[in-house]
Formats: sequence, structure tokens, C-alpha cells
Amino acid sequence: MTGEKKGETHWIIPDGFIPPESSGTQTSHESICVLNLQEKTANVNVSAYFEDREPLKDIHVQVHRERTSHIRTVSLEKDGQKIPEGVPYAIEVESDVPVVVQYSRLDSTQPELALMSTMAYPLNI
Amino acid sequence: MTGEKKGETHWIIPDGFIPPESSGTQTSHESICVLNLQEKTANVNVSAYFEDREPLKDIHVQVHRERTSHIRTVSLEKDGQKIPEGVPYAIEVESDVPVVVQYSRLDSTQPELALMSTMAYPLNI
Amino acid sequence: MTGEKKGETHWIIPDGFIPPESSGTQTSHESICVLNLQEKTANVNVSAYFEDREPLKDIHVQVHRERTSHIRTVSLEKDGQKIPEGVPYAIEVESDVPVVVQYSRLDSTQPELALMSTMAYPLNI
Amino acid sequence: MTGEKKGETHWIIPDGFIPPESSGTQTSHESICVLNLQEKTANVNVSAYFEDREPLKDIHVQVHRERTSHIRTVSLEKDGQKIPEGVPYAIEVESDVPVVVQYSRLDSTQPELALMSTMAYPLNI
Repeated sequence: MTGEKKGETHWIIPDGFIPPESSGTQTSHESICVLNLQEKTANVNVSAYFEDREPLKDIHVQVHRERTSHIRTVSLEKDGQKIPEGVPYAIEVESDVPVVVQYSRLDSTQPELALMSTMAYPLNI
Repeated sequence: MTGEKKGETHWIIPDGFIPPESSGTQTSHESICVLNLQEKTANVNVSAYFEDREPLKDIHVQVHRERTSHIRTVSLEKDGQKIPEGVPYAIEVESDVPVVVQYSRLDSTQPELALMSTMAYPLNI
Repeated sequence: MTGEKKGETHWIIPDGFIPPESSGTQTSHESICVLNLQEKTANVNVSAYFEDREPLKDIHVQVHRERTSHIRTVSLEKDGQKIPEGVPYAIEVESDVPVVVQYSRLDSTQPELALMSTMAYPLNI
Repeated sequence: MTGEKKGETHWIIPDGFIPPESSGTQTSHESICVLNLQEKTANVNVSAYFEDREPLKDIHVQVHRERTSHIRTVSLEKDGQKIPEGVPYAIEVESDVPVVVQYSRLDSTQPELALMSTMAYPLNI
């Protein structure tokens, strides 16, 4: 598999939403799941695009070599700004080395949980 | 990333369905989630294809530059015609500039909600 | 969009499973959702592959021009043979003209429903 | 369809998680669903990557010709090592012949079940 680049550097998730409420034992959350199969750390920038305001760009995250990181979007922060809960938005993930990105959401707003997941869309294939 | 076109102009979602009932605090709905990373507004046409009747074509929607729109299918309307609830159909999304499209459905027909999501299928890659 | 073929002729869904039980008002089921954007009828063959027996091949279905069909797998039948319920299997969809295929499952085995969906994997791109 | 290779040999699933608890009649589990459309057995290696420890590499599985295998991740074992429950991880699937891979999770941690599914991401297309 010489020459295989083990992912892409630019990924899009159009349906982002941080559920503002939880019930039961599990907390509602979204995760941006990144796998870095490279031999070095990936420097990842996450940007959030909204329906009616300017984007929140380039929140920096690192994912180490041969590691995964399941990034909770509620934890992302830049200059004191966070992604607001309960608001429809979209996610852009850029990395300095190729990685693979999947998006999952767990919603326990109403009793009992719901799950959804999809691979992110790679822009630069 | 010079030359990257930041999406596609033609997307397909074969499994559309507007759940006719809701329970609990959340309303059943479908969303066509569009992200426009361009420097100008995207003019988007949504068409609905059915199992046993002629398609409802070219319902027009705009998505502004560097914005996302999570379009609720129940809100789409053209010449007084809407997508009927409780009927299996399929969705075509065409845009005059490249965008990225994801489809999600929340169903609270029975108590407690269910979620599903998938990236739309890009036709013109 | 001259020359765009509007889909693919060969699609795979590795995770098939017909839930044998239902509860509440909604029946557990799987759907193979096909959209035919061509100007003529699509002749579709669905095959089922199992973990421990020979495949059930080439169950024939038609999808008319500019129509969608959300095919319930429980309804598929060939020479009196059907896909058994409660058994892990995989699905192959072949069409004589390009189509787009998505797979969805609704499971109401336990009270309240669960949903999952994914675009099928196109083999011949 | 001469020359069609019927899948890929390298697939990635960034969001792996074995739910540690179940309720109701269905057991929480993840499945890596593999379809082998070849005329010979596929030798498959599954590797698990974690957030804070070294990967568990090359757990060997076979999938016979014209068969599917819905591999429960909780059953995977190598030299007495298993994938731990309740820990975020990522999955790499490598096969000596082209196959198609889908990932699904059923979570019944809270009463009533939740489902999610996505096609794995093919690395070497």
C-alpha cells in the first residue's frame, strides 16, 4: 500500500447541532471522530458555520500519531467563544496531514436515547 | 487548496419521508442540510420524486455565502404545492455553485425520538 | 450536466437484517430506496448473501422512469424463496440503468422505535 | 462488469465504541459487517486505535467466498487481548481481497434501543 495517503485533509459535516437537554444516565452530545494513521501529530482546525451569523473559524485541536480523538463539540473553544447549544450549524475540519473523520450524535432530550452517525464528506479527493 | 471546488452541484437522497405524527416535546421532521463555503449565494433547487405520481420539481431555496441552511422539507412549497406527509419519496438537490448536502430525519411518531442521518450522494464527481 | 449518468448500476449494503418483532404502531422493516432519474424503467436485481448458506440471487424488481421505490425487503420473493427474518445478511443491487440507492431500517422490537440509514456503496465508480 | 474489483482492501471507521450496558431484550453491540463477493476466502485484519494507548493491531478474521460476516467487535481477540468496553476507539479493516464494509451499533444502555450505521471509509480508491 505504498503511496496510500491514509485519509484526506479537508472534511465537511453539514448537519451539526448540540442538543441542549439530556435525560436518563447519558448526556446528549455530538462527537467529531478523527483517526490519525500517520507517523506524526495532526494539527486540526475545526470551523463552525451558522444560518444567520458569521462563522467561528479555526478552533485548534491536536490528534497524536496512531491515535483517535472523539472530539466533543461542546468542548471546543477559541478566545472564549464556543459553539452555541440548540442552534443548527455546519462543521468544517481541516488537518495538516490526511486523517479520516466521522460524525456522531447522541440525543437524550426525550427519555431514552437516539443515535445518528455518518462519515464526513471529503472535499479534496 | 487552490482549485478545490468545495462541494458538488448535484446531490441525491433516495429515502425521503415526512413523519406525519409527533409525540413528546420534539416535532418529527426531516432536514436537508446544505453548507455553502463559496463567496456568493447558492441558488438551490429541490425536487421530490414519488412512487406513483409525477415529480414536484425545482422548489427554489437560497443559501447565503459562508452560511448553512438546515431546510425543513415540510416548509418547501411551489405554486401552492407541498411535499405530502407520510408518503415515501426521494429528493434531488441542484445548486448553481458547489455545496455539501447531508440528510437527517427525527421521528417522534412513537414516544421517545429516533434519529437517522447520511451524507447525500453526489452525482457529478 | 450533459453526460452525467445520474447514478451507478451496482450497489452494496453489507448490513442487512429484517427485525422479526415489532411493538407500538409502527412495524419493524428494512427498505432499499431506489431513485431512477432516467427516461426509462430500471430493471433491478436484488441478491442476498448470508453467513452460512448459499446466496439468494437476482430477485427482480422494476422502478419506473422519474420514480422512486422504497422496496421493503420482507416483500422480496423468488420461486417461493424469501429473505429470512432475524438473520444477518448482505444486499447487492444491480440495475440495467444508473440509479441511486440508500438503505434504511426501522426497528421497533423494543417499545419506541429506532432508525438507521446509510447510502449504499457504489461498486463501479 | 469485467474488471470490476467488487470492493476495496482498506477501510476505516473512526467512531468505535462498545456500549458496556444493556437493557430490555436486546444486547448492546457493534458490528463490522463485511461482504466478500470474491470467488475465494478473504483474510481480514482488524486493528483498534485508542485515544491514550498503543493500538491493538491485526486481529485476524476470515470471511468465506460469497458470504457476509457481521463481526461483533466484543468477540475480537488476539493473544488474550480484547477491545475494552466503554472506551472511544477507531477501527481499521484490511483485507487481502476487495470487500465492502459497513459499521453499525445498537445501544440499549437506556431502556429502548438506539441504532446507528454508516458505510466505512475506503482508503485506497
